[in-house]
Amino acid sequence: MNAKKTLRLNPEDNIVVAIADLPAGSAVEGEIVTRARVPRGHKTASRFIATGEPIRKFGQVIGFASTDIEPGDWVHEKNVTMGEDFDRDYAFASEARPPEGPRTDETPAFFEGYKRADGRAGTRNYIGILSSVNCSATVVDYVADEINRSGILDDYPGIDGIVPLPHGQGCGMAGRGEAFDVLSRTQWGYASHPNFAAVLLVGLGCEVFQIPRMKDTYGIAEGDHFQSLTIQEIGGTRKAVEAGVARIREMLPFAARSKREPISASELTLALQCGGSDGYSGLTANPALGFAADMLVRQGGTAILSETPEIYGAEHLLTRRAESAEVGQKIVDLIHWWEDYTSRNGGEMNNNPSPGNKAGGLTTILEKSLGAVAKGGTSTLRGVYRYAERIDRKGFVYMDTPGYDPVAATGQVAGGANVLCFTTGRGSAYGCKPVPSIKLATNNELYARMTDDMDINCGDVIDGVPLEVKGREIFEAILAISSGKPSKSELLGYGRNEFVPWQIGAVM
Amino acid sequence: MNAKKTLRLNPEDNIVVAIADLPAGSAVEGEIVTRARVPRGHKTASRFIATGEPIRKFGQVIGFASTDIEPGDWVHEKNVTMGEDFDRDYAFASEARPPEGPRTDETPAFFEGYKRADGRAGTRNYIGILSSVNCSATVVDYVADEINRSGILDDYPGIDGIVPLPHGQGCGMAGRGEAFDVLSRTQWGYASHPNFAAVLLVGLGCEVFQIPRMKDTYGIAEGDHFQSLTIQEIGGTRKAVEAGVARIREMLPFAARSKREPISASELTLALQCGGSDGYSGLTANPALGFAADMLVRQGGTAILSETPEIYGAEHLLTRRAESAEVGQKIVDLIHWWEDYTSRNGGEMNNNPSPGNKAGGLTTILEKSLGAVAKGGTSTLRGVYRYAERIDRKGFVYMDTPGYDPVAATGQVAGGANVLCFTTGRGSAYGCKPVPSIKLATNNELYARMTDDMDINCGDVIDGVPLEVKGREIFEAILAISSGKPSKSELLGYGRNEFVPWQIGAVM
Ligand SMILES: [Ca+2]
Ligand SMILES: [Ca+2]
Ligand SMILES: [Ca+2]
Ligand SMILES: [Ca+2]
Ligand SMILES: [Ca+2]
Repeated sequence: MNAKKTLRLNPEDNIVVAIADLPAGSAVEGEIVTRARVPRGHKTASRFIATGEPIRKFGQVIGFASTDIEPGDWVHEKNVTMGEDFDRDYAFASEARPPEGPRTDETPAFFEGYKRADGRAGTRNYIGILSSVNCSATVVDYVADEINRSGILDDYPGIDGIVPLPHGQGCGMAGRGEAFDVLSRTQWGYASHPNFAAVLLVGLGCEVFQIPRMKDTYGIAEGDHFQSLTIQEIGGTRKAVEAGVARIREMLPFAARSKREPISASELTLALQCGGSDGYSGLTANPALGFAADMLVRQGGTAILSETPEIYGAEHLLTRRAESAEVGQKIVDLIHWWEDYTSRNGGEMNNNPSPGNKAGGLTTILEKSLGAVAKGGTSTLRGVYRYAERIDRKGFVYMDTPGYDPVAATGQVAGGANVLCFTTGRGSAYGCKPVPSIKLATNNELYARMTDDMDINCGDVIDGVPLEVKGREIFEAILAISSGKPSKSELLGYGRNEFVPWQIGAVM
Repeated sequence: MNAKKTLRLNPEDNIVVAIADLPAGSAVEGEIVTRARVPRGHKTASRFIATGEPIRKFGQVIGFASTDIEPGDWVHEKNVTMGEDFDRDYAFASEARPPEGPRTDETPAFFEGYKRADGRAGTRNYIGILSSVNCSATVVDYVADEINRSGILDDYPGIDGIVPLPHGQGCGMAGRGEAFDVLSRTQWGYASHPNFAAVLLVGLGCEVFQIPRMKDTYGIAEGDHFQSLTIQEIGGTRKAVEAGVARIREMLPFAARSKREPISASELTLALQCGGSDGYSGLTANPALGFAADMLVRQGGTAILSETPEIYGAEHLLTRRAESAEVGQKIVDLIHWWEDYTSRNGGEMNNNPSPGNKAGGLTTILEKSLGAVAKGGTSTLRGVYRYAERIDRKGFVYMDTPGYDPVAATGQVAGGANVLCFTTGRGSAYGCKPVPSIKLATNNELYARMTDDMDINCGDVIDGVPLEVKGREIFEAILAISSGKPSKSELLGYGRNEFVPWQIGAVM
C-alpha cells in the first residue's frame, strides 16, 4: 500500500515501531528522522521523552526513560528502565473509567442470534452431546455419527448440527477440590451454553464425575433442554447408542423452534485468544483485535482476555485498569496461584524477554506481555473470573486460563463466550464447537499460505492499513459470523477434538 | 452349578470366602462348619490358625492372627492384626523363585501373529495416525476418515484398519522434565508399537512437542514404517489432509506384506487392567486373570500389573516377590513418588478399607489392595517400569500408572503390551486400539446386562467353576484374540477416543 516504515500502535504512544530496518536519517513521523539505525521490530521515539517519563506503547507504560530521549532516537535497553517500584505498585483502579457507550461516529450494532430462555443469546443452534468421563466418549461420538448418517437433520435446516464433545477426564480424580470444581464448571458451562438448543449428557455410571451430583449442584431438571443417561444403567454400548439417538430425535423438534432474530451486540461475549504468536502478533492482529474488543465493549458487549502465563509480568497494568481494588486484587491473587501451581509442578512462571525477543525489539517484560494483552484493548477491567466460571459482567473482563489454546478456549466458552477471535502468526488450525472461531493472521505470508484456515488477514497493517480500520473490519466480521456466516474452521468442520478441559490435579 | 457356599482363592490359603450369608453350623470344607454367622464376602478359617500366624488369602499374607482361630471361626477385625512391623519390612526378594517354565500338564502355546523388524510380535496389523499435539487432532481424524471412505482398504484385507489417535496434549507444557518425558515415551511407544505396520505422525508445527526432536531422541528415520508432516509446513488443514492421505496410500502396499504366522506365546505381553471394581472383583475375575497371567509367564510371556493407587498398601508384598532388592526398591521409590505427587496436588494416597469395605468383608489394607494385585498372579516380579517405558523383560513386571483406565492402559500399550485383559464389576465399555482388549465380567448379572461389551463371564466362579479352569479359559481367549479373533470392543469399534496419555505436569 504505502511506503511507511514505522507503525503507530496508539495515538498516545511516544514511540513508533520500525517495520523495516531503518538507517539513521530515515523519516519517522512529521519532521522526525531516526538519529541512529533502528532495527526492524524495534522502537524509535516519536517525540522528546524526558528522563523518568514513561515510555508508552499500546497507550500503556512499558518502562521509563533512563536518560533524556530525543525524537528519532532508538529506544531500547540502553535508555529504558523498568522503574524502581512500578512493577510492585498495583495502583488499583487508578486508570479506571466509567463505561463509555458508542462514540458519536458509532451506531448501535446488532447481530442475528437466538434468544435463550435464560436471557442469554446464542450465535449457533446446535444440539450438544457431552460425556461425563472418557469411558463414555465413544458412545457420544457414535450417537452423533448415527444421527448424522440417518439424514434426519435434512428435515431440520434450522439446526446447525449435532456436536459430540468427548474428552479425557472424569475419573481417576478426587471427588472434591479444585480439579473437580474446574471440571464441574466446564461441563455445566457447556451443558448450559446458549449455542446449544439442547444437550444430552452420557456417562458410564461408576465414574467420579457423577451426573446426578452435577444435576443437584446446578439445579438441572431433565426436560427439553437437558437429558442424561448412563451406559451401565441402560445395559451397554449398543443400547446406550440406541437410547441416545432416540433422545436426540426427541430433541430435534424442540431445537428447531429456535429462530434467529436481531439482538443487540451487547449480548455478544467475545473470547480473545492467541496461539502460535510471532514477531507481528503484537504489531498487527493483537492490537487490531484490541480495537474491535473496545468497539464491542462500547456497544455494551463483553470481551474476555485470558491466558495468564502470557500476561504474566503485565498484571500490574491490568490492576490499574481494574474498576475497583477488589477486581484488581483478584488479578494479583491468581498470579500468586500460578506461581504456586507451576512451582509445585516443577516449573516456574517466566515471561521475561529472551535474548531473541530483545534482538527482535522487545525491551521489557511489560512490553512482551503487552503484546498479548493488546488484544484486550484499553477498556476498564470489570471482572476477574476463575477458569470456566460463568461470566456475569458486561465489558472487558479477565478469565484465568492456561495459554494452551484448546484448554484456554474451552474455559472461555464454558464461561459463556459466544464468539471467539484467535490471532496467530505461525498458523493455528484451531476451531471450536459450539462457538464460531474467527482466525486472524498476523502476517501476509501466513494468510497466503493458510488461506483456507484464516478468516482475516491482519498482515496488511504493516502495509499501511490503520489498526483502527482493521479493528472495524474484525468487528464487522464478528457481527456477520455471529449472525450465521460460517467461519473458516466451521467450513472445515473443526470442533469435535478441541474440547479440552483444564486438568489441574493429580490423575489417580 | 453346585451349592458350595464358600470360595477357596488359593490352595495355600487358611481361609475361604463366604459367597452367601452363612449361619453358624454351615458346611465350609471337609468336616469344618462355621462356628458363628459369617456374612457374605467375609472370611472363615479353613484350619486352625495359631496366634501370630499369618492369614493367607490369594496365597499371600493379609494380616496375622491376634488370637488363636479355630476352624470355622469368622475371621475379621476382632481376630486379625496387621502385625507390628510387617508393613514396614520390604523383605526384598525373600519370596523370589527361579523361572518355572510350563508345568507338566502344559504344552508350549502359540498364537498367529506378525513378526516385526525389531523382533517383537504384533497381534494386529494396523496403520496408525498420531498427532504431536491437540492442534493436529482434527487433521489426524480427517485423514483416517478419508481413507476409510475411499474404499481403498477393501483392496487390502490383510490390513486391520487405520487408527487415528488424537489427544489433548503436546503444547502449553515445559519442553523438558517429567511431563515432557512421559509424553515422549508415550508417543514413541505408540509410534513403534508392533501392532502398527506403519505410522504417520501429524503436527501443527509450532508446538512444544516437536517432531524433529522426537525423531532425534529415538533415532527415527522416515521411511516405510514412519512418516511425518506438519500443518504449518504444508499450508493448512486441507493440504495436510491431502498429504496425509497420500502418505497413507503409499504405506498400504508395505503394510499389506505383513502376514500372520505361528509365534510362541512368549512374545505376548499382557496388560492387566481393572476398572469399575465391585465386591466380586477380588473373588472371581481378578484371581482368575491371575491364573491366566501365571500361565502366560510360565510360557515365557510377559504380564504387566499397574495402577499404583490401587496396589497402595500391598507394595511390600510385591517387594517380597521381586527378583532382587534393586527391582523391589523401584516399587518403594514409586510409592514415595506417588505420595509426593498426590500431596503436592492437594490430595493423598489412601487405600484403607472404608467402613463399607469392612462391612463387605475386607479386613486390612493388604486385603483390599490384594484384590487388585490378584490379577497379577503369583509369579516373581522381574522388572519395574516407569509409565510408558519400553518393557524389556519377560515374566511378571510392574509399570507405574494411575488407576484411571484409559490413562493406565495407554501407558501399558506404549510399553509394548500387545493384548489387554480388563476386569470389571460395574461394567466398563473400554476398548483400545491398536491392542485388542478382552473384558472380563466379575459377576453374572453384569455379563447378562452388558453381553455386547463383555468377552468372558467370570461370575460363574461363584457358581462353582474353579478359578484355575476360568484362568485357562481366559488364557485360551488371549491366544485366540491375539490370533485375530475380534474382541467385543473391537466389534463395537472402540479405540479412537481412548488414547489418553498421562498428563503429569502443569498446563501452561
Ligand atoms: Ca498466546
Ligand atoms: Ca494460546
Ligand atoms: Ca482398578
Ligand atoms: Ca483402572
Ligand atoms: Ca475424538
